[in-house]
Amino acid sequence: MIRRFYRIDVAGKPRHAVEESGEWRFVEGDLFGQFELGDTLDAKAHRILAPVEPSKIVCVGLNYKDHAAEQNMPLPAEPLIFIKPSTSVIAPGEPIVLHEGIGRVDHEAEAALVIGRRAWRVAEEEAHRYVFGITCVNDVTARGLQEKNVGYTRAKGFDTFAPVGPCVAQGVDFGAGVTVEGWVNGVKRQASTTRQLIFPIPRLIAFISSIMTLLPGDIISTGTPAGIGTLQAGDTVTIKVEGVGELTNPVVVGSR
Amino acid sequence: MIRRFYRIDVAGKPRHAVEESGEWRFVEGDLFGQFELGDTLDAKAHRILAPVEPSKIVCVGLNYKDHAAEQNMPLPAEPLIFIKPSTSVIAPGEPIVLHEGIGRVDHEAEAALVIGRRAWRVAEEEAHRYVFGITCVNDVTARGLQEKNVGYTRAKGFDTFAPVGPCVAQGVDFGAGVTVEGWVNGVKRQASTTRQLIFPIPRLIAFISSIMTLLPGDIISTGTPAGIGTLQAGDTVTIKVEGVGELTNPVVVGSR
Repeated sequence: MIRRFYRIDVAGKPRHAVEESGEWRFVEGDLFGQFELGDTLDAKAHRILAPVEPSKIVCVGLNYKDHAAEQNMPLPAEPLIFIKPSTSVIAPGEPIVLHEGIGRVDHEAEAALVIGRRAWRVAEEEAHRYVFGITCVNDVTARGLQEKNVGYTRAKGFDTFAPVGPCVAQGVDFGAGVTVEGWVNGVKRQASTTRQLIFPIPRLIAFISSIMTLLPGDIISTGTPAGIGTLQAGDTVTIKVEGVGELTNPVVVGSR
Repeated sequence: MIRRFYRIDVAGKPRHAVEESGEWRFVEGDLFGQFELGDTLDAKAHRILAPVEPSKIVCVGLNYKDHAAEQNMPLPAEPLIFIKPSTSVIAPGEPIVLHEGIGRVDHEAEAALVIGRRAWRVAEEEAHRYVFGITCVNDVTARGLQEKNVGYTRAKGFDTFAPVGPCVAQGVDFGAGVTVEGWVNGVKRQASTTRQLIFPIPRLIAFISSIMTLLPGDIISTGTPAGIGTLQAGDTVTIKVEGVGELTNPVVVGSR
């Protein structure tokens, strides 16, 4: 049974809610601690927010063999990590902004983990206990800046460059392989499965938590498969992760 | 007149306090909004915490000509930025941990800005209005990992790799040049002045805020001068920034 945790706007205040078999209920308590299910609600009456508020998004570069090949990069011997700041996060439906003068901007469809418990130096065998659930991330990237070799932080850290959502799903068997797709204007551009990950989930959690403590709500985005492509103003981009759903954002140009 | 804002432990709870001409008073209200000065206090009775809780530390690489030369790197045409996560922050006196197996670890003495107001696309001429004050940062770096070219995030993002403090000083004329020094075991290893910055403060704030929104309490660490060197277990490392004071941390080995 899959449970999907949303964060929604209720009269101007963020609330968590959970959907299971089509029925929605409010979450009462701490999503990452003790909580109970409360009243039912009409989901359509509420705007969907980004499902969590991460202190950091730790992304993994070149974690699919086909994407490393299309970037003409050798397969990494260890996970290549970088951070997208909390200020890059946007909700489903919010616009990805092509800031003026930054050149080519690409979509990157990714399946991501949401951390449920404070994690430091976690063993691979224990890693599953630290995962709250999975979500979709669009690791939007200013490819032109990345190719200038000015560092991943600048190319990937712009405001609006981390659409997350629409929910965090529990009960999806990530290890068995879930499909990850990227669509632009209704055309499928990226399609793969998490079975193709070079570094699987337990390895990523063990590796990253040997460097930095992961906090509840933090996100590990597991990398993008081949098929990345450019975004233009007016485009609509959708990331689909099996069991989670669809994360759709419009693309606009200019300043906010 | 210089005002120094501290964060201290008062019976297990963090409180802000300010020191001016040797007199200490509690800060009542929002440090980054409206506040008043309250009762006086005996500073020695309280443990000093990291002075702010940044959502991110944005660091600038190779921002002193002499450091770029000692690293055999060309001078950058634009600021090279990277992020240290909030989980890397430690207070004065807390140990810098040389995590096992990560090789050479260096100190990097830096003068840093603390942001006082939400900043997005700030013009250079307006940049000073977004600075709350200045502090010391030790941009601790696993040099061996950095030279393996696995990305700055890993080499610089370890827990305990961002000592910050002891206070945030207002009234220091950063632009006129303040001295920045790094000391190990009582020996001066690094000494320069912020007059030597390749990219000065207004340029850094304009540049970084054109990429990502800076939030109150966020830190911009402005880069390190020449003289970086290795840390060993048992060392004591001190960063001194003129007008701020001294940030001292012991160095230990192992896991926490």
